Amino acid sequence: MTNRTETDSLGSVELPADTLYGIQTARAVRNFPISDVPLHHFPRLVEALAFVKKAAARANLIAGVLDPDKARIIEAVCNEILAGHHHEHFFVDMIQGGAGTSTNMNANEVIANLGLIKMGHVPGNYAHLHPNDDVNRSQSTNDVYPTAIRLAVLRMLEPLTTAQEDLVRAFRDRAAAFADVPKVGRTQLQDAVPMTVGQEFASFANTIEEDIERTRQLSALLLEVNLGGTAIGTGANAPDGYTQVAVAQLSAVTGLSFVPAKDLIEASSDLGGLVMFSGVLKRVAVKISKICNDLRLLSSGPRAGIGEIRLPPVQAGSSIMPGKVNPVIPEVVNQVAYQVIGNDITITMAAEAGQLQLNAMEPIVTFRLLDSIRILRRAMTTLTERCVSGIEVDHDRCSDLLATSLVSATELAPILGYDAAAKIAKQALADNSTIPEAKERLGY
Amino acid sequence: MTNRTETDSLGSVELPADTLYGIQTARAVRNFPISDVPLHHFPRLVEALAFVKKAAARANLIAGVLDPDKARIIEAVCNEILAGHHHEHFFVDMIQGGAGTSTNMNANEVIANLGLIKMGHVPGNYAHLHPNDDVNRSQSTNDVYPTAIRLAVLRMLEPLTTAQEDLVRAFRDRAAAFADVPKVGRTQLQDAVPMTVGQEFASFANTIEEDIERTRQLSALLLEVNLGGTAIGTGANAPDGYTQVAVAQLSAVTGLSFVPAKDLIEASSDLGGLVMFSGVLKRVAVKISKICNDLRLLSSGPRAGIGEIRLPPVQAGSSIMPGKVNPVIPEVVNQVAYQVIGNDITITMAAEAGQLQLNAMEPIVTFRLLDSIRILRRAMTTLTERCVSGIEVDHDRCSDLLATSLVSATELAPILGYDAAAKIAKQALADNSTIPEAKERLGY
Amino acid sequence: MTNRTETDSLGSVELPADTLYGIQTARAVRNFPISDVPLHHFPRLVEALAFVKKAAARANLIAGVLDPDKARIIEAVCNEILAGHHHEHFFVDMIQGGAGTSTNMNANEVIANLGLIKMGHVPGNYAHLHPNDDVNRSQSTNDVYPTAIRLAVLRMLEPLTTAQEDLVRAFRDRAAAFADVPKVGRTQLQDAVPMTVGQEFASFANTIEEDIERTRQLSALLLEVNLGGTAIGTGANAPDGYTQVAVAQLSAVTGLSFVPAKDLIEASSDLGGLVMFSGVLKRVAVKISKICNDLRLLSSGPRAGIGEIRLPPVQAGSSIMPGKVNPVIPEVVNQVAYQVIGNDITITMAAEAGQLQLNAMEPIVTFRLLDSIRILRRAMTTLTERCVSGIEVDHDRCSDLLATSLVSATELAPILGYDAAAKIAKQALADNSTIPEAKERLGY
Amino acid sequence: MTNRTETDSLGSVELPADTLYGIQTARAVRNFPISDVPLHHFPRLVEALAFVKKAAARANLIAGVLDPDKARIIEAVCNEILAGHHHEHFFVDMIQGGAGTSTNMNANEVIANLGLIKMGHVPGNYAHLHPNDDVNRSQSTNDVYPTAIRLAVLRMLEPLTTAQEDLVRAFRDRAAAFADVPKVGRTQLQDAVPMTVGQEFASFANTIEEDIERTRQLSALLLEVNLGGTAIGTGANAPDGYTQVAVAQLSAVTGLSFVPAKDLIEASSDLGGLVMFSGVLKRVAVKISKICNDLRLLSSGPRAGIGEIRLPPVQAGSSIMPGKVNPVIPEVVNQVAYQVIGNDITITMAAEAGQLQLNAMEPIVTFRLLDSIRILRRAMTTLTERCVSGIEVDHDRCSDLLATSLVSATELAPILGYDAAAKIAKQALADNSTIPEAKERLGY
Repeated sequence: MTNRTETDSLGSVELPADTLYGIQTARAVRNFPISDVPLHHFPRLVEALAFVKKAAARANLIAGVLDPDKARIIEAVCNEILAGHHHEHFFVDMIQGGAGTSTNMNANEVIANLGLIKMGHVPGNYAHLHPNDDVNRSQSTNDVYPTAIRLAVLRMLEPLTTAQEDLVRAFRDRAAAFADVPKVGRTQLQDAVPMTVGQEFASFANTIEEDIERTRQLSALLLEVNLGGTAIGTGANAPDGYTQVAVAQLSAVTGLSFVPAKDLIEASSDLGGLVMFSGVLKRVAVKISKICNDLRLLSSGPRAGIGEIRLPPVQAGSSIMPGKVNPVIPEVVNQVAYQVIGNDITITMAAEAGQLQLNAMEPIVTFRLLDSIRILRRAMTTLTERCVSGIEVDHDRCSDLLATSLVSATELAPILGYDAAAKIAKQALADNSTIPEAKERLGY
Repeated sequence: MTNRTETDSLGSVELPADTLYGIQTARAVRNFPISDVPLHHFPRLVEALAFVKKAAARANLIAGVLDPDKARIIEAVCNEILAGHHHEHFFVDMIQGGAGTSTNMNANEVIANLGLIKMGHVPGNYAHLHPNDDVNRSQSTNDVYPTAIRLAVLRMLEPLTTAQEDLVRAFRDRAAAFADVPKVGRTQLQDAVPMTVGQEFASFANTIEEDIERTRQLSALLLEVNLGGTAIGTGANAPDGYTQVAVAQLSAVTGLSFVPAKDLIEASSDLGGLVMFSGVLKRVAVKISKICNDLRLLSSGPRAGIGEIRLPPVQAGSSIMPGKVNPVIPEVVNQVAYQVIGNDITITMAAEAGQLQLNAMEPIVTFRLLDSIRILRRAMTTLTERCVSGIEVDHDRCSDLLATSLVSATELAPILGYDAAAKIAKQALADNSTIPEAKERLGY
Repeated sequence: MTNRTETDSLGSVELPADTLYGIQTARAVRNFPISDVPLHHFPRLVEALAFVKKAAARANLIAGVLDPDKARIIEAVCNEILAGHHHEHFFVDMIQGGAGTSTNMNANEVIANLGLIKMGHVPGNYAHLHPNDDVNRSQSTNDVYPTAIRLAVLRMLEPLTTAQEDLVRAFRDRAAAFADVPKVGRTQLQDAVPMTVGQEFASFANTIEEDIERTRQLSALLLEVNLGGTAIGTGANAPDGYTQVAVAQLSAVTGLSFVPAKDLIEASSDLGGLVMFSGVLKRVAVKISKICNDLRLLSSGPRAGIGEIRLPPVQAGSSIMPGKVNPVIPEVVNQVAYQVIGNDITITMAAEAGQLQLNAMEPIVTFRLLDSIRILRRAMTTLTERCVSGIEVDHDRCSDLLATSLVSATELAPILGYDAAAKIAKQALADNSTIPEAKERLGY
Repeated sequence: MTNRTETDSLGSVELPADTLYGIQTARAVRNFPISDVPLHHFPRLVEALAFVKKAAARANLIAGVLDPDKARIIEAVCNEILAGHHHEHFFVDMIQGGAGTSTNMNANEVIANLGLIKMGHVPGNYAHLHPNDDVNRSQSTNDVYPTAIRLAVLRMLEPLTTAQEDLVRAFRDRAAAFADVPKVGRTQLQDAVPMTVGQEFASFANTIEEDIERTRQLSALLLEVNLGGTAIGTGANAPDGYTQVAVAQLSAVTGLSFVPAKDLIEASSDLGGLVMFSGVLKRVAVKISKICNDLRLLSSGPRAGIGEIRLPPVQAGSSIMPGKVNPVIPEVVNQVAYQVIGNDITITMAAEAGQLQLNAMEPIVTFRLLDSIRILRRAMTTLTERCVSGIEVDHDRCSDLLATSLVSATELAPILGYDAAAKIAKQALADNSTIPEAKERLGY
């Protein structure tokens, strides 16, 4: 196997002759042996880079700063990537220094080399199609990367929303099935007033449904991109009017309605939209974790707990205790929620660390944000399919607990007054009697 | 000084005869000696309780479940509280167990006793006006407290927004003043391409301005309240239709457009709206902290730093180094930002800890959220008045740094190609020469 | 009332003639209207400043760089502060820019003016005793403040440890009382194998006891101080050998065994010891929160929950539900834990924000760390006195739950094998029978 | 390819006949499709499981509860795993419900099947060697998993410590090289007093060196294990004295000095040691991040920044700006630090979520803790090799900045008094003159 030599201002590097990546990718791989998670772990991110490069090639063509043949070739290569090919060549580590330059150059080099092959040249023969001068024409990492992140997030949201909708449907289905089962409502883990199991499950559905709307609303913020701002938002080295054309092309190729940020300089360093979006995911995580805590509480037992509901058994619960079945699906969802909340802190710190005209910490923001979206989606699907849809209620347990409880004391308050009702409840508890018995005994 | 005795189902407590609080407040004060921060530390919270009690009294009157004289008295007392009186009697600790019951009962007892005095009775003579049966009629802590929190937050937002607007104006003013001062743009702390100081300051204004809109948009979520849901959202002990009337009255007395939550059960335990709102404040904090970091960087020196701008000196900087002046105002804002971010974690954990039909941890959520709003507002006002509005630029320093920099290499890339331009830049750095000199020397 | 004028390099300020603070404190109060929490909210912090100033005066005297009369006066004033006087004059906001300079100058000015009065001069007549040249002699904020923080933390630890010990004792007492009460052990909220209530409570005692040792071990790190390092750790303006003498004097006056940090430059900017200590407090918070969650679970009911234990009722639980009693003391402890965890993030971010030879964010670290110690101590004392010491067990409930449970299946595993035992447990659950019944029915 | 059928109490599952995993692993893989990170991503974790199983087999043999042939076979299989074989069969997702049961069962099943093959049986023929009854004999996930985690952490620490030591050495080397280069010290980004570049780099070395000791000290806590406690710490189903023997065997096979936890019940649910350890890693992260921030500040420029040092260029810095070189290695380290801090919050929340006799959230704690150790180690090695060891100083820049600075004003304070020195410094700044010039001009 023969080698080729690539050279940059720091010196030369030997590469296997047929590699699609080039010198900058090679240096980056050596510089960042951190997480072992390559770019192509997130296919939507690779595709987002291809979408941006395709839109940029079209915009450069329109602006007359890119040879039509080159533009055509770049677009053809991007289409192959969008069809799912070549992803394995996007393999720089997700955690990288350089504000995403290595990600952008990995894309530029792979696209250039794929283009060269298509043109009948050998990889590395950049005189015919150059990673920087052609593929990256009128672009900088500092506008390509932030734009691509937002696009990747937006496209990963669709399946997340579907997963949320499925979960809402599953809870609604259970709410309907349990609509007529009365039970004790509980506040602060103490018996409160009556409700139905259906109401309880409907509230789970409703709280998640709210998130769907909120997620949509805030994801709209991500449609503001800084493409065309190049290095620091001043549009250095981009032709006049390039931003409008490039963003329009990006909308055209993706089917999403992108708009240029109002202040490209501000948009180049600000990660506020991503911080906000991580905040939404944190809210989703908090809610889903609270629900899973409730499912675990309500199904506690089977004999020495609350035991009002039964989760479908999905695996043996213990290596030592035969017959034990544990709420493993809610438990895994709780853990995903904690990771999403931890990710939010990472993202927050990284966002705060921006300096002057750029935030060099964007790669970790990207990594943790995409991770949050993915694991939340998977956790929700698992919860829907392997837990919620199979939940059953224990009617007898619900009615027994309600019957023995003292919750009817509350109904007496508007009639006898709070103080008298409190006395009755206290008596019932002391006597181990019911509210009506205690009421009679106290002579009300 | 004589005493009076109050009694509840746990026993009796002696109180000074003229105290406006009652037995439940007294017990709460003894139970929660934690933060030393009393309710009245946040006047908007005390007022919010009075607004809710006033709206409830009106709604109870309309529903025919409260004696008109009692309703009139309760409203009159609430009006006094809203006029700023009696706040010192709301003194339970902000950190308290019981999901806000002690806060609600502190309000119920003080209002009842103020009403009793107004009616010519002595405090504690609750047969004539009862904290629970009258003041708290058709209510539970579990709908009063969440409603009051949201109202308090909304009313504390107005001055926060004003502070944000003032800061935007101050940055815009400086941007205008520095519009024609060219400087080196910097990415990753390395010299990048040229821009103006005006552009830099305009980006500060724009990024904060975005937050104002976002804050407004999300605060709308807080207009959904669970008033009328009582204990767990089922409306136990409230008359039919009470929710609609009570919420309408709350809107009437506050001038804000409250609506009943779609699912009162869900709304009783869910803190999603508050988590989200804390997320917005975190975003504000992250941005303002990044800006303050930039101001400190740009004003570093005075001789051995970047020194492009000068912050107004507001105090001597050192107890040992005479003449030293430090960026103390940005520094205090950074610290406020860190506290807001810490508060967000506290709020997140507390929200996740809700169980079944209630979240018992609402008091700490309330405390940290109101703290975040207040310190952010104060920090911004301080930043505007004592720093940003007096910032000056060092024209000579800006132009000297720009002149000696190598940023013009970028302009050569579209003409000579990236690789050639890189060689020139490297040569200039090595030679300690300028880009034109290096270009000539290399024969381009 | 007459005024006096004080002047610094930024100009002049009018002060009431008899104020003990001076121009720098006055400027700081105007610059930092943030938290409303003054220095004297933490008496141990004020005392720590006095201890440091006293030790420094002695060291300066020994080094021959401070007039003996002045040294004597400074020490006398410090002794008054240590006796609890004059604290109200330490009133700069806990959240302040300037890395603690305002705190140090507040101390320098108050001590100088108290000294001047003692010497028969009027406040402000600094020619006779100067805040910087005398009280701050051989010192900088950058060594005084970090030293004082550590001292304040160490002295606040003693009562925290006492509170921990009291809580351990209370749990041990309950463990002894419940030693013979068998109950169902639970993992993942599912019935597991038998244990005693005594074992459960002993584990609470043991886990807290471990923290005491850990806290002591790590607090030893705080005995390393940078006193004598002055501005950046190089000892600028301090006489030769001053560090050794000053630290020895600090040990002498406090009774604690301080040592000079090995690298005073490193020690001037590093907050690692404080981050670590906050980490210990976080661990304490996590454990205590877990225990409180358990107490709330175990006392859930009174009828429709687990109900194995009863917490002492300390206040009425609900404004609407008569007779309801809630676990308000564990709840307030949970909330304190969340605040401590939030504080840890604030401290972490502030520590990370140090730059070059100093960390300007020390004031927020100080504020949140002292807050964590104080509220943890108070929460533990409340938990001990108002909850744990009065916990009772419901023997019948414990034995009923154990009798109906299926936990004896585990005992069968070593005899019949895991698979057979699992079949028996499954059968018992399906039949609503006991393990022995199911075993017989299946013919084992 | 033929199948085999495995059955548990939930039903039957078809598996390819030759798989080494069994029904419980198969169910777990289907239940937890979350992170895509399998157990064998952390070889030390797989080995830790093998160590524990080997020690348990020996202890069971000694206790006479395991057939000697079976014990021998289990040990032989474990030795193969410890030699690096079979790791790919440990492939349950790192994020899993069930408190680690799936991890433990994955180990039990793979070991049983490898043993069966060794014995001449086919996989799945568990009558001859059973995953639960033999491999898991006298064990529960609840003691195996916590023990294995601690062992894995301890063994991953060694290379972390080596990486820290290498970094200390690299900084010391640079400190020695720069020992004689005077420079301006800076506090709050403002010029302070003089120091040497050597002192600055020595402080980096010293602060990291402290961490090594701290890490060692706290890792000792991880030597306390709960092996033998089985399900909840009561030792159910383990022979008398098993704990002592099993822990001694674990020490023997690993060469580490494990001891049984004092209270096995407490140790079964408590994650305090891991929370603490994560706190140490957070401290390491905070310090290294602060150092990287400093390296980026000190190397800012090359022309319009501080520029006192030069980091070795390791890759081209920009896709658009030719010749730009960025501090990508410190940047990647910063990002790793943020991830470690985010991991700490995840771990904290998971630890707080323990309930009663177990913490079901251990898997996420394990995942994030091992991730933190690994990425910190890699980041440090990268920092050492690709950045610190090649740092150079710009002597001229250091001396130019020092010469033009006003830091010598501080030296005047002890001579002329603070106030006079402050006037001189102010004059020098206003005049753009030096301190000696200003002093003369003001007539001192």
